Amino acid sequence: MKRLLLTLFCFCVLQGALAEDGSRLWLRQATDAQATVTCKLTSETAQIAKAELEQAWKGVPVVLKKTKDKDLRKLPASSYRIRAIEGGKQIEINSLSDIGLLYGAYHLLRLQATNADVQSLDITESPAFDKRILNHWDNLDRRVERGYAGFSLWNWEELPALSPRYKEYARANASIGINGTVLNNVNASPKMLTTEYLEKVKVLADVFRPYGIQVYLSVNFATPMALGEVETADPLNKEVVKWWKNKVKEIYQLIPDFGGFLVKANSEGQPGPCDFGRTHAEGANMLADALKPYKGIVMWRAFVYSPSDADRAKQAYLEFQPLDGQFRSNVIIQVKNGPIDFQPREPYSPLFTSMKQTPLMPELQITQEYLGHSNHLAFLAPMWEEFFDLVEPNTMNAIAGVTNIGTDTNWCGHHFGQANWYAFGRLAWEPTLTSDVIAKEWLQQTFDLKESSLTTLSKMMVYSHEAVVDYMMPLGLHHIFAWGHHYGPEPWCAIPGARADWMPSYYHNADEKGLGFDRSSTGSNAVAQYPEELCKLYDNIETCPEKYILWFHHVPWQHKLQSGRTLWEALCYHYDRGVQLTRDFQKAWDNVKEDIDAERFADVQTKLIAQTRDAIWWKDACLLYFQTFSKLPFPEDYERPIHELDDLKKVQLGITNEECPTIELLNKNR
Amino acid sequence: MKRLLLTLFCFCVLQGALAEDGSRLWLRQATDAQATVTCKLTSETAQIAKAELEQAWKGVPVVLKKTKDKDLRKLPASSYRIRAIEGGKQIEINSLSDIGLLYGAYHLLRLQATNADVQSLDITESPAFDKRILNHWDNLDRRVERGYAGFSLWNWEELPALSPRYKEYARANASIGINGTVLNNVNASPKMLTTEYLEKVKVLADVFRPYGIQVYLSVNFATPMALGEVETADPLNKEVVKWWKNKVKEIYQLIPDFGGFLVKANSEGQPGPCDFGRTHAEGANMLADALKPYKGIVMWRAFVYSPSDADRAKQAYLEFQPLDGQFRSNVIIQVKNGPIDFQPREPYSPLFTSMKQTPLMPELQITQEYLGHSNHLAFLAPMWEEFFDLVEPNTMNAIAGVTNIGTDTNWCGHHFGQANWYAFGRLAWEPTLTSDVIAKEWLQQTFDLKESSLTTLSKMMVYSHEAVVDYMMPLGLHHIFAWGHHYGPEPWCAIPGARADWMPSYYHNADEKGLGFDRSSTGSNAVAQYPEELCKLYDNIETCPEKYILWFHHVPWQHKLQSGRTLWEALCYHYDRGVQLTRDFQKAWDNVKEDIDAERFADVQTKLIAQTRDAIWWKDACLLYFQTFSKLPFPEDYERPIHELDDLKKVQLGITNEECPTIELLNKNR
Repeated sequence: MKRLLLTLFCFCVLQGALAEDGSRLWLRQATDAQATVTCKLTSETAQIAKAELEQAWKGVPVVLKKTKDKDLRKLPASSYRIRAIEGGKQIEINSLSDIGLLYGAYHLLRLQATNADVQSLDITESPAFDKRILNHWDNLDRRVERGYAGFSLWNWEELPALSPRYKEYARANASIGINGTVLNNVNASPKMLTTEYLEKVKVLADVFRPYGIQVYLSVNFATPMALGEVETADPLNKEVVKWWKNKVKEIYQLIPDFGGFLVKANSEGQPGPCDFGRTHAEGANMLADALKPYKGIVMWRAFVYSPSDADRAKQAYLEFQPLDGQFRSNVIIQVKNGPIDFQPREPYSPLFTSMKQTPLMPELQITQEYLGHSNHLAFLAPMWEEFFDLVEPNTMNAIAGVTNIGTDTNWCGHHFGQANWYAFGRLAWEPTLTSDVIAKEWLQQTFDLKESSLTTLSKMMVYSHEAVVDYMMPLGLHHIFAWGHHYGPEPWCAIPGARADWMPSYYHNADEKGLGFDRSSTGSNAVAQYPEELCKLYDNIETCPEKYILWFHHVPWQHKLQSGRTLWEALCYHYDRGVQLTRDFQKAWDNVKEDIDAERFADVQTKLIAQTRDAIWWKDACLLYFQTFSKLPFPEDYERPIHELDDLKKVQLGITNEECPTIELLNKNR
Repeated sequence: MKRLLLTLFCFCVLQGALAEDGSRLWLRQATDAQATVTCKLTSETAQIAKAELEQAWKGVPVVLKKTKDKDLRKLPASSYRIRAIEGGKQIEINSLSDIGLLYGAYHLLRLQATNADVQSLDITESPAFDKRILNHWDNLDRRVERGYAGFSLWNWEELPALSPRYKEYARANASIGINGTVLNNVNASPKMLTTEYLEKVKVLADVFRPYGIQVYLSVNFATPMALGEVETADPLNKEVVKWWKNKVKEIYQLIPDFGGFLVKANSEGQPGPCDFGRTHAEGANMLADALKPYKGIVMWRAFVYSPSDADRAKQAYLEFQPLDGQFRSNVIIQVKNGPIDFQPREPYSPLFTSMKQTPLMPELQITQEYLGHSNHLAFLAPMWEEFFDLVEPNTMNAIAGVTNIGTDTNWCGHHFGQANWYAFGRLAWEPTLTSDVIAKEWLQQTFDLKESSLTTLSKMMVYSHEAVVDYMMPLGLHHIFAWGHHYGPEPWCAIPGARADWMPSYYHNADEKGLGFDRSSTGSNAVAQYPEELCKLYDNIETCPEKYILWFHHVPWQHKLQSGRTLWEALCYHYDRGVQLTRDFQKAWDNVKEDIDAERFADVQTKLIAQTRDAIWWKDACLLYFQTFSKLPFPEDYERPIHELDDLKKVQLGITNEECPTIELLNKNR
């Protein structure tokens, strides 16, 4: 019996090792290379670097060596250098730190996987952002807010017992340079800071440490009150201050390299200092003071919008900009890339160019809350590239990405969802990387592709974000999603009694005259929050980039855009192009079939089918709805609807935020 | 109060008269013409002819006159001549009969509506078939089998009270030359022949008579037994013979011009002479003898197929051909156009070329049982034109069409369904008319179109049948419909215990080698039922027309067809073309919007949306299903599926035969 079990076990493990189920992510290199690697360092981190190379490196001998080289000393400690020495007969990886050596090892393996020339290597790499952090919106009950890849990785019930996934997670992150993780949802449970949970967090931190990953926690600002330990959570109250000091001390006793706190305060119902008549700065500073002795930081989110008359796009600026200069040096204001909320396309948040005396960090969303969940292929690097075109990364020290990771075998639900995790890590290290380069890097490591397939798929990836924008919300449209789950279209949505700024019509403003939100100087004047030159550019309907035109202007239906199309024509053009692009993606995927293992081929094919179906749904819903205002016919060239507006209005997906929908397209309706 | 009611009544009547709801069919000419029409005849029929012209004719004075002209005397009595006389200052319509004059009047009005030159008219018209008959598959409870336009027109409950629709029905039929109607379903209720019902039939016959429409009835062969009046229905039993003689006498006392009986015997569970060990001929002849003294006829259906081993396509021939020469002269064998059952495309039934000594009549299906019910635009004239290309009309004396008429305001469910009723009448009169001519005639009378729109829509109509064949069953595929309702695709259908020849797989025979039914000389040898030349043509896979290739052959997936495409490529090509054509129809309809009244425009637009959606459904279902056998990839150029086979297999429309489905395309599925 024992033997049978053993056999079964081996079989399963082998199967697991060989199956192309996406579980190995981009770390699929053979593990039988037996390279010659020299490393005199004994730290766990250095030994991991050595082992990784020994397993997978197939080239000349490698030496891993810490140095105090003066060029490297000018750079952050985790920087590294890779050089071919002795006429290419050996490769040396140097760094000031052990983690730098590990990053260098992964870099070298990446070069091997992407068939780069390693003959005359001489690379020095250094991260653009010091803190490259994943945010998990994971609840303690393992549901993941806006997660579409199963449950939370963190099994709080079983911890401190370990899952093999914890180390795999750390390794994957280290391989792309991510060095921090916020374990829990910004809508944080006070329970997170109880001793019971902190002891579990300690265990995870221990697993992550050798991979250079610091642990952070989201905190509920009212925790001392909520746990019944202090009668208030007023940040100026001495008991409160003391409570936090003690709590921080307790944490650091368990986790000496604990990273700090992430706080969502006075936003969407979360408690915060304003509940006690204090400012965001007073609240953040109190926590910062508690963390300061341990070099911990506070990441204080600027995602706030009260139910006021002010244009929602202006509110974070209005609330935070006046506080510029009032924050402690270990507070970083964490600002979403755009002024609203992770839409498929937004202009950048004007806070990035208006808080000169405060450290800021961008919060990007890796999970596709607004981009088709884990059903749609949407490579987000082009969106982030666009952001970095206008927001200089070198003004900031940290960056956060809301992750798309869960318990699904392939980690992210969609195999191509892994590429967004990968891209976040790579851009956090080097924001000047282009989408095309990142796509190719990821593809080469994730599949075994011949050159033509690599080109086909990298093109598909690079176009995919624009395709989603096209079929969901082109020309600067935003927030016309279905109520709650943000998956399907619902530009007509009207929930009695709901906040106006949660309704699509607040954003699209469709009427007989035209479409779009007038944020120009004659409207809400949100343009004034941008630097003068951009303000001018956006304010003028003739110069405003077409991709933002409905974000900043209420545009007449027959207004001629820069493309020469009227607004109505352009709207039809983009929605149609989005659908046609999804069809192209289906063909592209079919074309590379022989390069892809059967399992992942079928999985992705299924997702692409759903994506096209959804793209048609979006196109039909939005164009038919907006047509009730424009009263204009569809231009000749574009595919006609296959749905009726009235039928689409009846669609109720009935999905919650945590789930990814599957849509049945044909059903009886009698 | 009375005045108010009167006002309301007038308002409604006026609204009714003006509304373009399709209720006026192709008879939409203004009724205020006040033409000068001379007619000395006092018969009701002649007076109708006079009144129709007086109301609508806008040209020179018209004289309606019976003649015994020797040219006309060579032709059937209902023939007519229309001539411009006195240098075009007058038009004379001549006929041997009153009904001929009425047909002539409608012809003249049709010329006016189609903008024909009437200056130098000299037309002689004579019908190709003497009997041009509609078959209603209407049950006495007013449900219509395979009807998709509401309930039965015949309100048996209220009869002998009249509905205005009865006269409108007769008028519409007369306007296109239809001269007979079988009021009830071939799956006939014995109650039909009770005195109670015959007295109601008499009332309808009286309404129809002035319009030249004879009434016929479908009879249940076991009626004398079923009514409990004789103990058997054996056609050679004297009591039975006597019963039928008396019944026929009773009928003719009520309806002196009664047309005769239509019989579905020993088919799909209906009783017949074979139940008593007699032949079809013995059964039919017994009824014929009873009808003979009154010049009544028997239309005996050849739609038979027993659950035997023989290829279903061969069975009607096997059962009827040997009876050739055994039928009375007033029996006509009514044969469906194809050997199976009204499929979107069938080769003709070989009975038409193999019963030289028996009068035959084709049974066409106007109602779209297998062509998308009243949801799809499918103009059937091209299908019938194809039939008449091979089956010479002049060998036959009668023709039947299973009607698509019901209580719907627009009579046929789909506005364009009217065109099939119209086309049937026109082809029954003149089978050499082309589809294009009929389409244009109908369009010009049904809408008010400018020339370019007329061209656009007539093209759409002419292409529409091929489009349906393409997206449902191209290349000779047949009977792969969903169980029961025959609306959607179900090539995978397998009902445990059901007759093999009711299952799609019986017909498509998909396997790893190929697709199609081998009816060649190496298969079921159904080809041998055709005349030698056709037999040779169909038997050889290299010469068999591509449109019938899967009807007659089991074709290997990679077999090169005459088009140069392999079977699999051709299959993909046709399914894709079908979908693209439906999209073209949507655009074509949009293009003529300004020529169409809002009501009918919206109605048809809605139907075209459903048609495209359904075409995609068909394409995806069939290609994905057949791909599980072919294992071949989709060729580059064609649109990829937007559904998954597994999802499509779960679709249950849950509709009955009498209903037209509306399909909801997006629905929650969790």
